[in-house]
Amino acid sequence: MKLYDGGRAPNPRRVRIFLAEKELEIPLVPVDMAAMEHRGEKLSRLNPLQRLPVLELDDGTVITESVAICRYFEELHPEPPLFGVGVREHALVEMWQRRIEFGLYAPVAAAFRHLHPAMKEWEVPQVPEWGEANKPKALEFMRFLDEELTRRPFIAGERFTIADITGLVSVQFMKLAHIEVPAELVHLRRWYENVAARPSASA
Amino acid sequence: MKLYDGGRAPNPRRVRIFLAEKELEIPLVPVDMAAMEHRGEKLSRLNPLQRLPVLELDDGTVITESVAICRYFEELHPEPPLFGVGVREHALVEMWQRRIEFGLYAPVAAAFRHLHPAMKEWEVPQVPEWGEANKPKALEFMRFLDEELTRRPFIAGERFTIADITGLVSVQFMKLAHIEVPAELVHLRRWYENVAARPSASA
Repeated sequence: MKLYDGGRAPNPRRVRIFLAEKELEIPLVPVDMAAMEHRGEKLSRLNPLQRLPVLELDDGTVITESVAICRYFEELHPEPPLFGVGVREHALVEMWQRRIEFGLYAPVAAAFRHLHPAMKEWEVPQVPEWGEANKPKALEFMRFLDEELTRRPFIAGERFTIADITGLVSVQFMKLAHIEVPAELVHLRRWYENVAARPSASA
Repeated sequence: MKLYDGGRAPNPRRVRIFLAEKELEIPLVPVDMAAMEHRGEKLSRLNPLQRLPVLELDDGTVITESVAICRYFEELHPEPPLFGVGVREHALVEMWQRRIEFGLYAPVAAAFRHLHPAMKEWEVPQVPEWGEANKPKALEFMRFLDEELTRRPFIAGERFTIADITGLVSVQFMKLAHIEVPAELVHLRRWYENVAARPSASA
């Protein structure tokens, strides 16, 4: 199998961090997103939606969407579990994964894509008013998350999961979106320092 | 257990259709979203994000996010399978579920929330330019989906899955967003008529 990878972009990073946590080494094919290589002929054939990462299996099956790729590896290599253990925990990890995606990752991405000059050709049309409207959404969600993190070490419970990976990538993505974690959100900051210190975070 | 339900809103409907396909009857607690009951004290305690549906288990565990709730029931009641069967199919269903959510459901929801007068108090601020920008995104995705549906009966393959439920709800949601399936997308229309004719579609 081959994983078409997109360097520092947040979605490709999510999958690489996931693989690092699993201690899996999958052959990577680097794709130069800055040069729009993911919109070229070869990648468009693999994924007509022109997004990365893309996993190509040996039988030719193509799996796109970061979380679908992560689930595939979770089923093949269940240890360490990154989607929870047991019916109840599976549901709670899915819940938190989605809360982080919709409540934090999506507003941060919207602020970045609609406000950053480098995104002019990527997000057409850029709607700066929509970019600005997302900053308070991200802040409000961080306050909610900070309160939740008073009760447990990781986003979805007692163990590190894919929800923490999405959270880590979202917080680091905030730099490009000119959003900061407010100083008073000490639980969110404690969580961030903890997950950012894991070896996988450098993947 | 109890499922706090939101009537005709698309996310609560996704879960009801899922339960109908499984032939499961779960006690429903109706919540009047038009009267903003989901933002009241009781529901806010269950889900601080003030969204529906919400599943409350007998041990007090609260599961929110439609797809997390569906996964919970899938694990408890695997038949008929609505998330695919086997590692490869699980990944492809997850991929398509996400493609439909990000490529169709999200733009339709954005067009509705940012353009419809009834959403003025729900989406603050409404950004009409962003609402309009989403209409061509939805159309472009429908063309991609139509082409994919030349090759198989259902969105993710040979069997009906949760991706079809999200697709069905998205297409029906389009009415409120003033978006139509173009007449020339005959494969998408054939798929829609097929899934809309299932008994579960009236749930």
